[in-house]
Amino acid sequence: MAKDFTTRAEDYSKWYNELVVKADLAENSDVRGCMVIKPYGYGIWEKIQQQLDKMFKATGHQNAYFPLFIPKSYLSKEADHVEGFAKECAVVTHYRLKNAEDGSGVVVDPNAKLEEELIVRPTSETIIWNTYKNWIQSYRDLPILVNQWANVVRWEMRTRLFLRTAEFLWQEGHTAHATKDEAIAESEQMLEVYADFVENYMAVPVVKGLKTPSERFAGALETYCIEALMQDGKALQAGTSHFLGQNFAKAFDVKYATKEGKQEYVWATSWGVSTRLMGALVMSHSDDNGLVLPPKLAPIQVAIVPIYKNEEQFNAISEKAKAIQEQLEDRGISVKFDDRDTHKPGWKFAEYEFKGVPVRIAIGPRDLENNNVEVARRDTLEKSLQSMDGIDAYVAQLLKDIQKNLLDKAKARMEEKTTPVNSWEEFQEVIDNKTGFVSAHWDGTAETEQKIKELTKATIRCIPLNNPQEEGKCVFSGKPSTQRVLFAKAY
Amino acid sequence: MAKDFTTRAEDYSKWYNELVVKADLAENSDVRGCMVIKPYGYGIWEKIQQQLDKMFKATGHQNAYFPLFIPKSYLSKEADHVEGFAKECAVVTHYRLKNAEDGSGVVVDPNAKLEEELIVRPTSETIIWNTYKNWIQSYRDLPILVNQWANVVRWEMRTRLFLRTAEFLWQEGHTAHATKDEAIAESEQMLEVYADFVENYMAVPVVKGLKTPSERFAGALETYCIEALMQDGKALQAGTSHFLGQNFAKAFDVKYATKEGKQEYVWATSWGVSTRLMGALVMSHSDDNGLVLPPKLAPIQVAIVPIYKNEEQFNAISEKAKAIQEQLEDRGISVKFDDRDTHKPGWKFAEYEFKGVPVRIAIGPRDLENNNVEVARRDTLEKSLQSMDGIDAYVAQLLKDIQKNLLDKAKARMEEKTTPVNSWEEFQEVIDNKTGFVSAHWDGTAETEQKIKELTKATIRCIPLNNPQEEGKCVFSGKPSTQRVLFAKAY
Repeated sequence: MAKDFTTRAEDYSKWYNELVVKADLAENSDVRGCMVIKPYGYGIWEKIQQQLDKMFKATGHQNAYFPLFIPKSYLSKEADHVEGFAKECAVVTHYRLKNAEDGSGVVVDPNAKLEEELIVRPTSETIIWNTYKNWIQSYRDLPILVNQWANVVRWEMRTRLFLRTAEFLWQEGHTAHATKDEAIAESEQMLEVYADFVENYMAVPVVKGLKTPSERFAGALETYCIEALMQDGKALQAGTSHFLGQNFAKAFDVKYATKEGKQEYVWATSWGVSTRLMGALVMSHSDDNGLVLPPKLAPIQVAIVPIYKNEEQFNAISEKAKAIQEQLEDRGISVKFDDRDTHKPGWKFAEYEFKGVPVRIAIGPRDLENNNVEVARRDTLEKSLQSMDGIDAYVAQLLKDIQKNLLDKAKARMEEKTTPVNSWEEFQEVIDNKTGFVSAHWDGTAETEQKIKELTKATIRCIPLNNPQEEGKCVFSGKPSTQRVLFAKAY
Repeated sequence: MAKDFTTRAEDYSKWYNELVVKADLAENSDVRGCMVIKPYGYGIWEKIQQQLDKMFKATGHQNAYFPLFIPKSYLSKEADHVEGFAKECAVVTHYRLKNAEDGSGVVVDPNAKLEEELIVRPTSETIIWNTYKNWIQSYRDLPILVNQWANVVRWEMRTRLFLRTAEFLWQEGHTAHATKDEAIAESEQMLEVYADFVENYMAVPVVKGLKTPSERFAGALETYCIEALMQDGKALQAGTSHFLGQNFAKAFDVKYATKEGKQEYVWATSWGVSTRLMGALVMSHSDDNGLVLPPKLAPIQVAIVPIYKNEEQFNAISEKAKAIQEQLEDRGISVKFDDRDTHKPGWKFAEYEFKGVPVRIAIGPRDLENNNVEVARRDTLEKSLQSMDGIDAYVAQLLKDIQKNLLDKAKARMEEKTTPVNSWEEFQEVIDNKTGFVSAHWDGTAETEQKIKELTKATIRCIPLNNPQEEGKCVFSGKPSTQRVLFAKAY
């Protein structure tokens, strides 16, 4: 399985692409920039969805569904939004095909041209706020706390599986509030939900912060984000939550009557995470032996492999294996007992290792005699003999240990790769060689931000929340600054 | 709530449309033919999805995700398929917008024309079989048992909420098999899964059958279907499962090596149900007082409404109500304790009745004194006083009774409205006046089928499975026939 597999040191980018394809997570389709998410990859995405959905509902949100298509004119209604989103997108211009006259197949019917073109949604603020207009009359109709699980399309020129694809799957929350404070509190709450999920389920530590004005979502007054750090020292934006102010309410004329009978514009937020999280998951933990999955998101948490030479042995081992499977499943652990006779144990070991199954249990004839099993953990590749008695409790604890170990390792890496610098030389040196987050003073101007980006490819990932205020000088311009911000090269 | 609400007798079609909108299930969007599924409606769809997904997985299927877009040329690869699907569809021709020179908004950039147009998937056989080509080499790779939850688009000219919309949500299973028998068994198995779900969760009885050749899915050798009967006597196709033979394998050149090393084409099935089921659900059980939902799919199964005159009473009632809520939730029953002080009890009663909440519990001060609650069931509108002791067991049983009652009522209606006829006069009389399923002999020709459709608007809904064979004469042509088939006007 792992042969012909590029190592991280050889070529990190190639390692990632090969891993995604060979571990059966996803592959490129024949449709430019669109991926096929394969069953094993989709199984991880389902676990991500289920947990996030639970967290959204626990914070009072409901799901709904809005149209795939957005009339072209909607995009123009919010000035910043159109600049950000109405550029590279899929445009539907016709609604019918007809047989080609020369019998060569089907062609677009020129008589079936739409009066107004439809855009395949790149994000749904416009169509949703056009709908909310009819849902909101008075303060009694607020807040609206709605989320949508959907596909969206952005016509990216350079695509990479999960990280940047023309079509991707995501969730987009869109909420409407009576007051500014309530909307800000909602944006902040959802950032916390994302951070909680990414750290405690994906085992990926994040920095919570604010985007600079030039990195904000098109149409937002404030963009909150969580930033993670990959093994190659590049940052990855894992989720964003936007305080939209009254921009969309004004663009779509959405007002409500207050308790006092006054008409006020509604306050808005939106927030989203996407299949991009799959990329972050893969890149955070995996190694040169393949995928490493945190137990909480692994479709298969434990694989049991029987080792036998004849049917009698197989039957005896199967009996034990099934008993263990049942004990583990009673604890809510997902188990695959791999009793296929088409593949040898060695092949199966390699397969589960490559696919990142957190725990592998092997049972052979001698194990039966000794009432033992061999337990291998994927994160450290350590193996040990364990008694069959109480194996369920042992494995349950081991899964927790693995989950924690992955987070601890990723945390240590992020800490090690976060470097305060105080000079421009140091900045360049760290960005280019040590890589990771560079914590540096910035004069707060878009001009400096842009110049640093041009010179080093590093962008300001975020201004961390609760950022300590300290006097300093901008690492680039030398102008006065009140705080450090985090720079990095990013995905 | 229910005032200004059309009755079924007045105008069945209007009743349906009003119900869907006023009960907050869905509404038309500004995008032609596309609906917005509102949170309450989406809550029902989520329950449908969850249960079906469980049943798909229990029969060995996994989920995956394939691209939204299909290259135009793919549709032409299977001759029947292109006739059926490559007509009314959304065509993407460009991938960029740009600012209009006159500043009036954005316009399509003529320089960003796609070399080959992309079709928004009306169904995914072509893109999926183009993918399976790379997944299948040998018999070891088979079967492939994959399902996709997705949105699809068919440019319908006349649309109705849930029943026929340009964009709709559905699942589409696509399986690949080594043998014909296995593929047929899969199609039949999935038909059983659908029938089981629709009858036992939606409480809608169905006839299982085969479509006639002219009603088959475009590209199928055999289409299995389940047909339900609505209250107005019109049939509704609730789900289909197709045996596709080797048509798509041949169109996309998908072969596998047998154990003996021979190259054979792969056998295929596909099967799907959609948000159309929501329409069937609404039309099967609801009445002139609003929605009636089967308990197994109701987002709120029990609503508890406190009746009080002052805070002291409210506090005392709340305490009891919350205790009951907890008892019910411990049994897995979803409960809403409606303690809003913005609405009066009468308004709440009307609201829950209109929204089809199966059981409503009211608690007033006198109930507290007598250790009683008032229980109202939505299906029969009956009310009764019940002791608070053991109320959880009572309600749990009541929910089962309601579920059963809805199915029994719908079954009785279907039986009553299934009429065997033996003459053309009788056929016309029943189709036009009594309505429902007409069981009649048919000579087996597409010509007769077409003529009957032109004359009466009735179509052959299906040839029931395990149909008794009997000698007879075609009700229209008088030619010999070996079996009766089911005709009806349909949605």
